[in-house]
Amino acid sequence: MSDKVRIALDAMGGDHGPAVVVAGAALALERHPSCEFLFFGNAAQIAPLVEARHKLKAVSRVVHTDIAVRMDDKPSQALRYGRWKSSMWLAIDAVKKGDADIAVSAGNTGALMAMSKFDLKTLPGIERPAIAALWPTLRGESIVLDVGATIGADAEHLVDLAVMGAATARILFGLPRPSVGLLNIGAEEAKGLEAVREAGRILRDEDLPELDYRGFVEGDDIGRGKVDVVVTEGFAGNIALKTAEGTARQIGQYLRTAMSRSLSARIGYLFARSAFAQLRERMDPRRANGGVFLGLNGIVIKSHGGADAEGFAAAIDLGHGVVHDELLAKIRTALERFHKPPQQAVGGVAS
Amino acid sequence: MSDKVRIALDAMGGDHGPAVVVAGAALALERHPSCEFLFFGNAAQIAPLVEARHKLKAVSRVVHTDIAVRMDDKPSQALRYGRWKSSMWLAIDAVKKGDADIAVSAGNTGALMAMSKFDLKTLPGIERPAIAALWPTLRGESIVLDVGATIGADAEHLVDLAVMGAATARILFGLPRPSVGLLNIGAEEAKGLEAVREAGRILRDEDLPELDYRGFVEGDDIGRGKVDVVVTEGFAGNIALKTAEGTARQIGQYLRTAMSRSLSARIGYLFARSAFAQLRERMDPRRANGGVFLGLNGIVIKSHGGADAEGFAAAIDLGHGVVHDELLAKIRTALERFHKPPQQAVGGVAS
Repeated sequence: MSDKVRIALDAMGGDHGPAVVVAGAALALERHPSCEFLFFGNAAQIAPLVEARHKLKAVSRVVHTDIAVRMDDKPSQALRYGRWKSSMWLAIDAVKKGDADIAVSAGNTGALMAMSKFDLKTLPGIERPAIAALWPTLRGESIVLDVGATIGADAEHLVDLAVMGAATARILFGLPRPSVGLLNIGAEEAKGLEAVREAGRILRDEDLPELDYRGFVEGDDIGRGKVDVVVTEGFAGNIALKTAEGTARQIGQYLRTAMSRSLSARIGYLFARSAFAQLRERMDPRRANGGVFLGLNGIVIKSHGGADAEGFAAAIDLGHGVVHDELLAKIRTALERFHKPPQQAVGGVAS
Repeated sequence: MSDKVRIALDAMGGDHGPAVVVAGAALALERHPSCEFLFFGNAAQIAPLVEARHKLKAVSRVVHTDIAVRMDDKPSQALRYGRWKSSMWLAIDAVKKGDADIAVSAGNTGALMAMSKFDLKTLPGIERPAIAALWPTLRGESIVLDVGATIGADAEHLVDLAVMGAATARILFGLPRPSVGLLNIGAEEAKGLEAVREAGRILRDEDLPELDYRGFVEGDDIGRGKVDVVVTEGFAGNIALKTAEGTARQIGQYLRTAMSRSLSARIGYLFARSAFAQLRERMDPRRANGGVFLGLNGIVIKSHGGADAEGFAAAIDLGHGVVHDELLAKIRTALERFHKPPQQAVGGVAS
């Protein structure tokens, strides 16, 4: 791998398209000068935005396509008309061809996952990919997965999620043996889904060198930062993520209302302005923008569709971080160790 | 039904036992003078607390038992030693015998549900009970159910939850036809669990007079107050509830840290003190303390185990509210209308 991190961008994805994608790339480039960009999409819209930015222009190439996946398409629709030729597909395919190290898109999640799976295929031993989210906690950040790639999970899939999540935490947080918990609805052994209990037994018995299994965690343990990696199937994980986002927005709204209600509150707000700015920054969902698709032969990052340039840059930062430390290679190694290959029969005859 | 609301209390439940239960009852009595109380538990501990409160003493009776269910018992253990004789069982059984209109306990949720189900039995047509929570939203409050009584749900169970949740919302919020949403991981028809999609089809086709079905909602729609009743199976519902509680605590912690960081922030805090007090009140989990067990032949309210007297009083308030408006009778009527009895075969011979 060269020192350069080559990033393929779906310039047409998200609510704001090229304007945010190009501006986000320019921001990320300032923080990570080793970035190089491949923009896929409508060249007439992208090229002027890139050319207006001197530094960005020097490390960017624009590849034109007329086709863009719409935000409200079903995955099957998007695959039908967008395969081989949409900006989303071409960004993913650049990773497959080795032209890019990662792909980033703010487009339709379902379509992005369907195309990533179709083009990159899943890693050996992995049947279903997952989306890992960075979750801000009182102790820093945790990784929560799966936050919506697949619904339902058997014990083996949950164990795979634990292994892939731990590999991601090792890289992103620089931890030798990240702590891992299984999301459940009670800390007692007896509670919860059978698949979750079985996954707990496997993780405890295997006692893997690359992760420190800590048992079950509950919804309120996520924000507490009780473990570095929280493992759950995609339905509950997505609901947890969206509920936390909704609660943060709700409290932000309460706070704004409370602070504008009386003169003395407004005066107080002025005095505490920098404290509020700090609070806003900690609650800023843009800081943790970007879901990592795991379990594929290549890394794809999903940015929020509504992200602004700062948010999109955070998704690129995340991609840069995992590529730089070769997440994919580390996941492959961890999975290979765990999914021991079946012993070859020697001298036997299949009956 | 008399004007009096007779409330059976498990005085030994929760982290603090009789001290909080008796003090909570006294607070609730001030707000609802029509309350009468039956305290079950260790009379030597309860009686002095009741006798110290003149008004409370006049409307209370203490029934002694030595047995108390522990907070960390499994439901099966609690049933084994606590059936027929624990304070928790006796409170539930008072509802069954008609000695009380509702039972309130801050004890172990699993044990309370197991005993309630064993003693009260489920309503006709309902196989599994549910726990409904009051959830503070930007528009006021919503009801979310099931938040952890049973794991997994088929379409029929989700529809029953919608009917029972809507009956509760009609009473608690005084709405003629509450809006109902099914919690899912995408607003599109195509997404989510098959059981959720099927429940959506049933609710749309039936177009019930007692609820206004609005389709799927996502995790962040709960706090927004998009619908009056959010329906989900218990695993995802419990994770959503706990995650929201955890996020609120996390942000409260950020806020405290930010406001004590600099002198000007502390001065600002002083000016905005009443605004912060108002914010604290809105974020106060005690205001919405109390899960209602639905689907049983009797109403049982679960208070948070760690609730203080104000929190426990809120759980009693909730019970008072639903009994006063005869929640159980309304649920029975709604379910009967929905679960049409099978037609009797006339003149036929069973083969």
